Amino acid sequence: MTYTSAALFIIGTELTRGVIADRHTQVISSQLTQLGYRVDRMVLVPDDGTIGDVLRDCIDNCDLVVMTGGLGPTSDDMTRTIVANLAKVPLVRDREAFDTLHARIGERIWGANEQQTMIPQGFELIPNPLGTAPGFKGFIPNGERQIACVAMPGPPREMNPMFFDQVIPWLAQLIGHDDFSRSEYSTFLIPESKLEELCKSISFNGMQWGTRFQDLKISLYLVDGSEADRTEMANRLRSLVGACLVVDGDVQPTTLLTTLLEERGETISTAESCTSGYIAKLLTDQPGSSAWFWGGVASYANEAKKQLLGVRSETLEQEGAVSEACVLEMAEGMRRTSGSDWSLSVSGIAGPDGGTPEKPVGTVWFGFASKTRESTAVKVHIASYGRDSVRRRASVMALILATQYIKGACLLDTVKKWQYI
Amino acid sequence: MTYTSAALFIIGTELTRGVIADRHTQVISSQLTQLGYRVDRMVLVPDDGTIGDVLRDCIDNCDLVVMTGGLGPTSDDMTRTIVANLAKVPLVRDREAFDTLHARIGERIWGANEQQTMIPQGFELIPNPLGTAPGFKGFIPNGERQIACVAMPGPPREMNPMFFDQVIPWLAQLIGHDDFSRSEYSTFLIPESKLEELCKSISFNGMQWGTRFQDLKISLYLVDGSEADRTEMANRLRSLVGACLVVDGDVQPTTLLTTLLEERGETISTAESCTSGYIAKLLTDQPGSSAWFWGGVASYANEAKKQLLGVRSETLEQEGAVSEACVLEMAEGMRRTSGSDWSLSVSGIAGPDGGTPEKPVGTVWFGFASKTRESTAVKVHIASYGRDSVRRRASVMALILATQYIKGACLLDTVKKWQYI
Repeated sequence: MTYTSAALFIIGTELTRGVIADRHTQVISSQLTQLGYRVDRMVLVPDDGTIGDVLRDCIDNCDLVVMTGGLGPTSDDMTRTIVANLAKVPLVRDREAFDTLHARIGERIWGANEQQTMIPQGFELIPNPLGTAPGFKGFIPNGERQIACVAMPGPPREMNPMFFDQVIPWLAQLIGHDDFSRSEYSTFLIPESKLEELCKSISFNGMQWGTRFQDLKISLYLVDGSEADRTEMANRLRSLVGACLVVDGDVQPTTLLTTLLEERGETISTAESCTSGYIAKLLTDQPGSSAWFWGGVASYANEAKKQLLGVRSETLEQEGAVSEACVLEMAEGMRRTSGSDWSLSVSGIAGPDGGTPEKPVGTVWFGFASKTRESTAVKVHIASYGRDSVRRRASVMALILATQYIKGACLLDTVKKWQYI
Repeated sequence: MTYTSAALFIIGTELTRGVIADRHTQVISSQLTQLGYRVDRMVLVPDDGTIGDVLRDCIDNCDLVVMTGGLGPTSDDMTRTIVANLAKVPLVRDREAFDTLHARIGERIWGANEQQTMIPQGFELIPNPLGTAPGFKGFIPNGERQIACVAMPGPPREMNPMFFDQVIPWLAQLIGHDDFSRSEYSTFLIPESKLEELCKSISFNGMQWGTRFQDLKISLYLVDGSEADRTEMANRLRSLVGACLVVDGDVQPTTLLTTLLEERGETISTAESCTSGYIAKLLTDQPGSSAWFWGGVASYANEAKKQLLGVRSETLEQEGAVSEACVLEMAEGMRRTSGSDWSLSVSGIAGPDGGTPEKPVGTVWFGFASKTRESTAVKVHIASYGRDSVRRRASVMALILATQYIKGACLLDTVKKWQYI
């Protein structure tokens, strides 16, 4: 049979009581859409006995049911029982699941957790390296049809890796991708609608793609085609938007910089005006940050730029705080005070007010200084979607530009490529 | 009849294709739960003809159906037609809706927008001041029962005000709140499960409550009861957790501090170790921050504490960076350098590694200095739910403690109250 129509079935009383927000529907539906499925409904239900009828209805109307939640050790968590009932098979203990869980929690398995090692007979276990509840996948007979069914745990940190690594390849095969393969890229600073438009304009050989929006980046997945075709499409995108905005794999913009610094055994310091601590915070989100981050200054007031960084009064009076001269003095002052190998500075108009015709909201100067290399500064104009967005994008830019600076790339050329930002 | 069981029905192909994330289910389900409804299912469906059957099924199984989306001017947007069919009534033009829309868009109304002025006969219009699609509410007969049904537009900026201002009072009345009224409070730093437990323990006269989790706070809604009862319940909560963690109205923790500083015409500076810019970033999220924020230092490395803040080497060697002496020197150094009226400092073990038996992960010292008042420092132990959570909660604590310090409250007493954090 051909699998095309899909239903998502998200189980959790915390969701229907509004205690927590659902984080699964978008992740799963965007991936299913990208694979070619049509998602006909997404149902969120409480973790109680009432789910059987709703699930029955999904099975009558769709070819594939993707479930999350209801696999915990408590008696409320009855996904496996309901699926077994619908498939008219008993629950059986999965030896591998039992051994794995026993190795992890020992004799404590003989309580409610034992239940977590059971799966509907004929189904296949999906290991869960991050929690006690494994998932399972298989088929529920429904008249002449075999409805595909996959169940995964509810917590996002367990569901996401299981879905991306173990479930998507199976779903790809079901819908007829003979040789499912895809490549993941991380894109920075390109607006989602523009990324969509650019992919459409450069796609060839029927290449498919999908995107996933995250806080500081958008993941771009290229699906099917040969690996050479996917690389070619990524390169076409790079030639349009600038190579450093499209990076292989799942990479945060912060990691670009911190990995480079770690490799070189060097440190950076930050002097931030409009972003005021945003970059320092990002650089310390990861444990072990002292390896690459010396410290920084949030020099919001002009007085702070003078006191903490040694920016000259004349510079502020004649050029203003948002100027090449100011960010150079900020970066150099920070570099000198800190003794760190590198330093970066940012000064701009975050808005919503304070812009002028010469320096409209979104004008941001970036400065970079080094122990060994000449200081440099570049200006970027960020299309303003609000103060928050300007500050977030300025922070991501600073991280990428600092990476380029340390690598010895020409920052002006880099910025010239950024026509879509 | 008694209305207790509710279904949400969220319409939008962007949702089932995963293009955008659903933002309605949590907002609506938490409010319904708080009113006393039991949300039995939340269904997200594409904006096509297939929704009729699923909606029929909701109506057969629930007392109330809350719908969003499908009210736009395009032919795909067929919510009003489907509801009219289910209610077996024609669509009729609503004079008020027509006049309002005509006044706004003039002759352009004679295209697809005309459709937006139609509602199922017998239903009541809900005006939409923020868009072209009004909502409607009414009843769908189903055998002996009258199923309540409300339809609202899909965009959150139109749906949210319509729901909170015009729909919630109607839903409250349906489920039997004679005189619906409620008060909103902002709570800080109290874990959600603990807040739930405390409310249960202090509730009286059948007072109901609901919570809404946000990034830096939890909104607590007390529903029904007299205003005096609601105030009494809030005061009971305050006496358990500390008055400054339960604030009237919808207030961000940053605003507590910045409002106070603005009133006094004073400024603050920040010296952050483990939070490393988080607080400086929060203090500048709002436009106009230069009124209250001078600037700050992210003194992540010990060298940065010495260079930028004048912390003494002996202090770091003898007491360590996470100590009373260190945060006092940090705050005082920052105050001196800046000339700001107030300054705060934070130094702690954010984890996940680096804790010791004496200073486990989550140990955070806060220091405060002033032009006019003696410096002071307090220690808090934050239960660790990960590096991110420790840093976020330390930042919120710093904002609240700084507010207390400026007000002249005893910080030690404040912290002693924080037994549930």
